[in-house]
Order: sequence, then C-alpha cells, then structure tokens
Amino acid sequence: MKAEIINIGSELLLGQIANTNAQYISEQLAKIGIDVYYHTVIGDNKDRLLEMLKIASKRSDIIITTGGLGPTMDDLTKETIAEFLRLDMVLDKVSLDKIEHYFQKTKRDMPNKNIKQALFPKDAKILPNQFGTAPGAIIEDKNNTYIMLPGPPHELIYMFDTYVYPYLKKYSNHIIYSRVLKVCGMGESTVEEKIKDLLTEQDNPTIALLATQGEVLIRLTAKVEKNIDPGKFIYPIEHEIKKRLGDFIYGIDNQTLEEVLIKRLIEKNKTIAVAESCTGGLISNLLTNIPNASQAFIEGFITYSNEAKIKRLGVNPSTLKKWGAVSKKTAAEMAKGVLNTTNADIAIAVTGIAGPGGATSTKPVGLVYIAVGSGEQINVDECHFTGDRLRIKNLTAKTALDKARRYLNFI
Amino acid sequence: MKAEIINIGSELLLGQIANTNAQYISEQLAKIGIDVYYHTVIGDNKDRLLEMLKIASKRSDIIITTGGLGPTMDDLTKETIAEFLRLDMVLDKVSLDKIEHYFQKTKRDMPNKNIKQALFPKDAKILPNQFGTAPGAIIEDKNNTYIMLPGPPHELIYMFDTYVYPYLKKYSNHIIYSRVLKVCGMGESTVEEKIKDLLTEQDNPTIALLATQGEVLIRLTAKVEKNIDPGKFIYPIEHEIKKRLGDFIYGIDNQTLEEVLIKRLIEKNKTIAVAESCTGGLISNLLTNIPNASQAFIEGFITYSNEAKIKRLGVNPSTLKKWGAVSKKTAAEMAKGVLNTTNADIAIAVTGIAGPGGATSTKPVGLVYIAVGSGEQINVDECHFTGDRLRIKNLTAKTALDKARRYLNFI
Repeated sequence: MKAEIINIGSELLLGQIANTNAQYISEQLAKIGIDVYYHTVIGDNKDRLLEMLKIASKRSDIIITTGGLGPTMDDLTKETIAEFLRLDMVLDKVSLDKIEHYFQKTKRDMPNKNIKQALFPKDAKILPNQFGTAPGAIIEDKNNTYIMLPGPPHELIYMFDTYVYPYLKKYSNHIIYSRVLKVCGMGESTVEEKIKDLLTEQDNPTIALLATQGEVLIRLTAKVEKNIDPGKFIYPIEHEIKKRLGDFIYGIDNQTLEEVLIKRLIEKNKTIAVAESCTGGLISNLLTNIPNASQAFIEGFITYSNEAKIKRLGVNPSTLKKWGAVSKKTAAEMAKGVLNTTNADIAIAVTGIAGPGGATSTKPVGLVYIAVGSGEQINVDECHFTGDRLRIKNLTAKTALDKARRYLNFI
Repeated sequence: MKAEIINIGSELLLGQIANTNAQYISEQLAKIGIDVYYHTVIGDNKDRLLEMLKIASKRSDIIITTGGLGPTMDDLTKETIAEFLRLDMVLDKVSLDKIEHYFQKTKRDMPNKNIKQALFPKDAKILPNQFGTAPGAIIEDKNNTYIMLPGPPHELIYMFDTYVYPYLKKYSNHIIYSRVLKVCGMGESTVEEKIKDLLTEQDNPTIALLATQGEVLIRLTAKVEKNIDPGKFIYPIEHEIKKRLGDFIYGIDNQTLEEVLIKRLIEKNKTIAVAESCTGGLISNLLTNIPNASQAFIEGFITYSNEAKIKRLGVNPSTLKKWGAVSKKTAAEMAKGVLNTTNADIAIAVTGIAGPGGATSTKPVGLVYIAVGSGEQINVDECHFTGDRLRIKNLTAKTALDKARRYLNFI
C-alpha cells in the first residue's frame, strides 16, 4: 500500500514554518507499515493542486492532503478534489450545526463564509474537528483513497489520531514498533563495541545507534504481521542489551535524565540540593521541570561569584586562591557546603568554564568539575567538553544528573 | 523566476526528521524574491528521482536538491542528474585532495567508496563543503539550473549561505527584507489597537503580528528592487511603531529578553541577583546563557522549600504562615532578602504555583507573584498565567526579565 502526502499552504513555501505535519503523518504511517513515497508542498492554487492530484492518483493508493479547509477564498482543497473526481459539493447539516455552535461558544456571530466549511464532496466520510471549524473528510474512489486534513498541527494531530489512524489500519498488514533505549555516560563507539554482534546479526528488530548531545540512543524497530505482538521480537533483544550495558541505560523512549533522577529519589525517599557555577541554574531548572520535584529537590545555589561560594557554601578562600574556582577541590568543597547548610541527602556541585571567555593557559574552555556525594563521601570528576557555551552548560548538566542517578544505586 | 526543491532522503519519508532544509532554503529564496512553487520529498531511489527531474525541469527554472551526496551506494543524486542531462561523470582532483585531507585530519584512512564524492557531472561548478566530505554542485543547462546540496543541515546552511545565495542573487530582480520588533508586556490585541491604522494602510512594508509565548512579534517586510535600500521603506514605519509602543519593544530580530537585560545592566554598571521559587532556576539559567553574564549576574537562590526562604533570604516565618509561600508579601520579602544578603543593585524574586499540583481553593495553578526592586523600593505584580508547568515557568521568567529590564530605566 503506497501513500503520499500533499501539504497545501503558502507559509510552507515561504519557509515561515517547517512541514511538521508531513513528518507526523509519515511517522504514524510507518508504524502501521504503510509506505510513504512522496511529500509534496504546494501553495493555495487550484491549478497546481489539480495537476498534483493527476500525478498522485497514478502513483499512490492513498493521498493525504493537509491545509486548505478554512473559510476563505484561498481554501479550496475539498472543492478541487470534488472537481477532480467529478463529485458535487453537498451541505452537511451536522457539521454546520457544530460550526454554528463553535461560534456561539466563543460568543461571536458566524460569518457567512464559514458555511463553506460544512460543504463536502458527495459521499465523503466526515471527520469532526475538535479544536476548530474545519472538519476533515475521506473519499474512497475506485482507485484511490483521499484523506483531507486541516493545516494547524494540533487540529491535524487530534483528527489523525482519532479517526485516520484507526481507519488506515485496515490497509495495513503489518505493524512497525520501535523502542528507544537511552544511554548516558558511555560513548557511541563503546556502545557499538559492546553490541557489535547484535548490530550485524539482527534484522528483526533492527538496531540503530544515534549519538545526541551527551547521550546515545539505541533504537530497536520490529516489523511484524498485524495481530502479532511485536514485544515478542523486541523484548529478548532489549533484555540482552540491558544485560550488556547495565545501568548505563537510564531510560526508555521519551524519558529524561531529570525525570528518572527525581523518580529514583522519591522512591528511595532521598532529597537533593544543587550548587551550580558554570551551569548557572540549568540543573535546578531541569529538575524542577518535573511535576512533584518538590518532594525530592530542596534547594539550589547559583554561586556564580567567588564571594557567593565562600558565603553560601563555606568554600575556603585559600582553596579558591590556591586552586582557583574551577578546580577539583572547589567542586568538592561546594558539594560539602551544600550538605552542611541544607538537610539534603545528596549534593550535586559543578564548576567550570562555559566560555567563550574565562579560559587561562592551564584551564581551557570546557574544563568542568562535577561533584556528587553525601555525608563525608564526595566524588569529583574532571570533564573536558567541547562546543559553545550552551552546549557546555548542557553537557555539564546531563553528566551531573547522570552521575547523581548512578550514585543513588550505592546509597 | 520559479524554483522548486527536491529533498532526497528516506529519513524524511519515515518521519524521523522534519524537513528543515526545505524551510531554510525557501526562507532564503523569499528574501531575494525567487518564488518557490514546490517542495518534493522522495526516497533514495534512482527511478523516482529521474521521474521527478522530468516533472520539475518542465515547471521550474531552478531545481535545488538536498541529500544523496554521500559515499554509499544509496547516494545517487549527482549520478542521476548526470544521467538525466546525459553528462559524463568527471573526477575533480581538488575535491579528492580535500576529502583525503579531511580523513587525514581526523586520523582515519579514506575508504575507496569516498572517491565517489569527488566525481561530478561534466562542467559542474563545485561547491566546497566546510563541514563534511560531500561537496555540492551547480549545473546550468540551457533551460534549467540544477543545484545539489548535502543533506546534513549544518553542511547545507554553510554551503547555501557561502555559495548559493550570492550565486542566485543574479536571478533576482528584487529583494525582500524583514525586520521583527519584539514586544513584551503588552497583549496582541492592545498592540493591534495601537497600530491599527498602520496595519491596514501599509503595503510596503507589510506589517504582520504574531503572538508567541509571552511576547508579540511585529514583522515588517519590504519588497524593493535590487540595489534599492529596503531600510528606506522599513525605518520610517519602524520609527512610528516605536514611538507608539515605546519601551514595550524590547528588541529586534533574534534578540532575547535576557540578552537585552544583561546588556543594559552592564551599560549601567549595575548588578543583579535572583531568588526563584516556582521557576526553579530558569531565570538564572536564561541570564547565564549570555556570554559575559558574570559581569552583571552575581548569584541565584532557588528557595524551593519554606525553610530555604527563611534561612537564605530571611523571609519572616509569620509571613509564610499568615499569607503563604505564594503571596505578595512573601515575594517582596524574598526580594528584600536578596538585596540584604548580596551586594546586588537589583533583585528579582518569584513565587507561584506552576502546577499540576499545589493549588488550593484560593490559589489556583498559574498564580504567580513577581517582585523587582532595589534599596527599599520593591514592586510586586500579581500574575495569572494559564497552561502547563513548563509554560507557566516560562511565562513567569519572561515577565520577570521584562519587568527588570523596564525597571532599569528608572534607576
């Protein structure tokens, strides 16, 4: 079964927005094993849409359009498809009522032009729009299926998930299921080395590695016949990879390091406090993005200046003088200071040079010390990161969160 | 002059990435007045590319491809275009040297398959690749111009900006120039009201409003003949809008609130310190994203717990008991505490309910107090934000940064 997507909208051709609709639909179709061979973007132009329908109807079974369902003169997707298929446009009373109701709800009069949104090609299956006035539609011709969706992404996603995905499943004879194992603290080449045999031998699921900022993602993708549980293929391999990489795998799919750390802290009934120099609040910000963070996160210190390090955390002025603010000893004293001045069970402290300024002959941009510990036991790592200021802040934060996450296993 | 873009890559059709290359190129072409009528995405497939070249060469003058310039068997953009135009593939010694050098630099042997990347259709103009081994190419046929660019966005953007944009300017007889005025602290409808006459009367530049999270963007777009200064059209209108909106306009184009605030602080030789409850470090993180932030930003306190508010900032326990942590009085005492315990000239303090938990019958999610001040003078605003946790954190941070920015005018 071949599908193609036609996205209609001048804002795409002017580069004002990226075509995330095509991405979303393609991703969903891939899951149910429907192949997408083309994306085409055209403007709000009847002749070009007619021309595209001619081309698309010959090469694809399923044609999905986005956009052009609005109330203005420019919006002509339904009308053009009706013309192409030689179908009349028919008023749908139910849709008209809904559109009228939508305007009543928002306390406005419905302009006459909106009546257009309740007109559909004859015999179309109508797809209600939860978030706007533009219903979608499906028409089955003897050769092709035409699916018309609205342009605004949140309207499209809801409509696709609710009506189109279940509808298209009937065309699918297999499904594709992916799971992503997220790795922190181990480089891509080491991960590759450890699972090399699986990478070359496996074809269902396939295994792909992707290195991102401070992390490696391992994507397992299984293709199975409809009604077969893809877990049967995925889980044994996932289990084997987990056995080999152990706790370097911190999460699955969309989980984040901060989410996993907060969850583990709450489970273990432990609290955390953070002292940040070069990250300037990023670590605390990430942790407090997680709902219920307040159950585990007590307090953060952004001790940017030396004075703050001394006054808030009790860092010894002679340590700063002898070793500098960016040093193993300062990081350790910052962490100890956090533990002394708060009730937290665990402390994170980071100090480093995020750049672009601040480097010296012995301390380059990217040099960072990360301390994690509790009680008398503080571990400090020296890290050398590359990249710009934001990247160095981000790598520092990720490494610190990961270090704290793994530290929790031992207390 | 009509252009179209053909993006080649299965990862696009699988929905693994959004087509940001098409967006970038379209945006740049719009600036020089070259109309883009189509984007087409196809997979790494020779027959489908040949078919697309046939279609595209009939309807467009300029055809820009992205992707398919790599060293593998799958990569066949140059070969296919050569076949379509009946041109031989020729080895370019300069490119081969560069590719070999690239491998030497990264201390690897060049695989034989990479030789392919130094082969080009005869008489092609070669576009060096600053960041990878895949050079691009331009071929001028009697009817069309074909421009081949690599797929990785950072390679493409550099190559486009350096070689393609200047090259294409010759096809352009007018340029389109945009400037964005960034507004904070005033809603979209108020902005619209204040410049209503300009919005309806102006057509060069056109004026468009866009509301984003906590900000309103006013985009001025002028279309002028090549060699005419578009500033002549833009600046008088920009001046008029600035006169009407005054200091609600905080910046131009890509400037951020935090960048403008740090700049103004440094100019005025003032320092700032921040106490954050509901934003959990976000405000400090934004400020320290700016290089040289340390010249103005002294210290941050993330006083998430009541204990921290009392111990670090001297908030009165009876204030917390009587009014609660989320109250005007607590916000004011937090700001005062920051000023008392640091040397900062200006303090920001925020306390609120970011949700999803934490609301009470009188204090809903989204209730936030923002205090800004210096010396004995502290101003506190009560804000009511809507949305999820991240949105409320973000709106709080933006509002606080903007309040501090405007406060600076009066000290």
